[in-house]
Amino acid sequence: MQATSRDNPGSVGIVSPHTLSFDQGITLQCGEHLPSFDLVYETYGELNPERTNAVLICHALSGHHHAAGYHEEDEDRPGWWDNCIGPGKPIDTNRFHVVSLNNLGGCHGSTGPRSKNPQTDMPYGAGFPTVTVKDWVRTQAMLADALGIERFAAIVGGSLGGMQALQWSIDYPDRVAHAVLIACASKLSAQNIAFNEIARLAIKMDSPPDVAPEAMPGLGLARMIGHVTYLSDDSMGTKFGREVKTGDIGQGRDVQFQVESYLHYQGSKFAQAFDPNTYVLVTRALDYFDPAIEHDGDLVETLRRATAKFLVISFTSDWRFAPDRSNEIIDALVAAGKNTASANIISSMGHDSFLMEIPRYFSVLGAYLDSVASEVDV
Amino acid sequence: MQATSRDNPGSVGIVSPHTLSFDQGITLQCGEHLPSFDLVYETYGELNPERTNAVLICHALSGHHHAAGYHEEDEDRPGWWDNCIGPGKPIDTNRFHVVSLNNLGGCHGSTGPRSKNPQTDMPYGAGFPTVTVKDWVRTQAMLADALGIERFAAIVGGSLGGMQALQWSIDYPDRVAHAVLIACASKLSAQNIAFNEIARLAIKMDSPPDVAPEAMPGLGLARMIGHVTYLSDDSMGTKFGREVKTGDIGQGRDVQFQVESYLHYQGSKFAQAFDPNTYVLVTRALDYFDPAIEHDGDLVETLRRATAKFLVISFTSDWRFAPDRSNEIIDALVAAGKNTASANIISSMGHDSFLMEIPRYFSVLGAYLDSVASEVDV
Repeated sequence: MQATSRDNPGSVGIVSPHTLSFDQGITLQCGEHLPSFDLVYETYGELNPERTNAVLICHALSGHHHAAGYHEEDEDRPGWWDNCIGPGKPIDTNRFHVVSLNNLGGCHGSTGPRSKNPQTDMPYGAGFPTVTVKDWVRTQAMLADALGIERFAAIVGGSLGGMQALQWSIDYPDRVAHAVLIACASKLSAQNIAFNEIARLAIKMDSPPDVAPEAMPGLGLARMIGHVTYLSDDSMGTKFGREVKTGDIGQGRDVQFQVESYLHYQGSKFAQAFDPNTYVLVTRALDYFDPAIEHDGDLVETLRRATAKFLVISFTSDWRFAPDRSNEIIDALVAAGKNTASANIISSMGHDSFLMEIPRYFSVLGAYLDSVASEVDV
Repeated sequence: MQATSRDNPGSVGIVSPHTLSFDQGITLQCGEHLPSFDLVYETYGELNPERTNAVLICHALSGHHHAAGYHEEDEDRPGWWDNCIGPGKPIDTNRFHVVSLNNLGGCHGSTGPRSKNPQTDMPYGAGFPTVTVKDWVRTQAMLADALGIERFAAIVGGSLGGMQALQWSIDYPDRVAHAVLIACASKLSAQNIAFNEIARLAIKMDSPPDVAPEAMPGLGLARMIGHVTYLSDDSMGTKFGREVKTGDIGQGRDVQFQVESYLHYQGSKFAQAFDPNTYVLVTRALDYFDPAIEHDGDLVETLRRATAKFLVISFTSDWRFAPDRSNEIIDALVAAGKNTASANIISSMGHDSFLMEIPRYFSVLGAYLDSVASEVDV
């Protein structure tokens, strides 16, 4: 294993997605049966002969399997977590075999609303069954089986990804050594649900539910709502303030503020790239997530069966899943007697901080995963 | 003057709105000319012979002239600020002559998008000109002229209403003795503007701009967005938590959370009662509000000309116009040498606190206005 440096801006380079078909299908938590499904995934770094150095990356609302590297030499941007995954980076591909997939119900290659329903020969569209975090974790375990990974050295996720890592620790305690939960919560608040429902209504307002997904203003609007909740008031103030893009605010005419222009752009871009039915499906999975429901809301009791060690990270300016939401998880883990490390990172960037290269964040995450790697290297 | 008691749940009783027509019209800040306009208003309590005890109430986004009392014996609910205005209440109609109007551009009787454009004989609709806070204050001053009120003992407003009171103190320093600014800001933040723009897009998504206003899902959605920002995460948690109205969350099927049901109801109800073009107009007035722009952003310099005394009130859980936004105003007032009282009220109810009967809030407001009344009674 070569020496690595945290300063090395190493990339995993050119990567290719793979597809695995699961012809045995799956009966989902909602009771509906998918007769077969595909999962698209990528891997970075070598699986060691003992098969003990695998790290699973779970993605958030709009994420997918392409977490690091480039699909082509001239791709504009690398994978969505390229700043964190690579040789010498916090999730160090010189030491770990990183697995990253597009979740079931997604719109980046795994079976989802855009896929053809074999029973109707038409796209599932809005008829795609409800998928829960528990379902995602189960299909991730099926993927791990297919890849010959009995146990993950670590499962890492931010936001909705952190919820999957938490569910893993509960549903497959023997298969996850470390769970890294970043900027997440053990369940959504009424305010979180409210913003999700507003986003869903925006999508449903302008599109008959079974229409094939295209560029849709409703989805763009949904994304704009989400985007505002991912940023902080402070960071938006710093980035845009009341800067005017067009018009004359002194006369109060035809003014477009920079923040409006930015959100319009983000919304349209997202609407072209993402599937509205996937957005509805994923926000529903967020709303429904509440692992403690199996123990009448007792998270401590729910976590007793976990055997993983935990790292829980939050960000001071995150108001979507505020530090107190992480503290609820930390308190429950401690009460359940689990080995729990945690850090609340000072950042002005809101929920989106979990995607940013913030020195203390990357330092904590890197140091924790160093120790995970040391366990594996024995 | 009869003895009053703060505990007396006295009502102003049955009240009737009045309409004043301004046939001289007005040239608005945007440069457009309205050839004539009506303002609808109500008054509560007697104007004293010296005409020195008038209090102007400025309304917020969805408010109107009907602030207190009942229009009919069997009206379901009294005016929107009935808990605060009446005999023995903080804004005591035994001592003050209270004037409350529907602002220009509104949809409750004053000239606005639903009114007929005399030049086309069609409703103005989305073609109604841009109206600013400065325009509102000017038309309110015209109303005061017509009512024979040279100077207000106090001008009181919450949220957007507070912005009007602030603008009064700058534009008509001789005509306002006291300005009471509740839960407001001297200008919107990028986040505030972003939420307003999302609401406007929701409205524009489902309605051709010139269509006559009717029950519109877009407006309902806009209201839902607003509503979430008026409440706090805590108060929504207390009120709704994750309570399910229908469906089985354990199976993740057909679930509707209580918070969703509540917001749907609020959105639909609002869409039936309010005008989408007024909503767009008023949110634009909010966005554009920035009195300091006349002095290159220097609020202290802008406030120097004010001669009013000020009371500034904020609420701890208000994240739409957080206490720090009030502090910006307080700091500028103090720096400009103004007589400034202030209170930050502990409340879990978010921005909506300004409409609630919170003991310390009403106590501070009542005590301040008692002293205003004493000045007048001399």
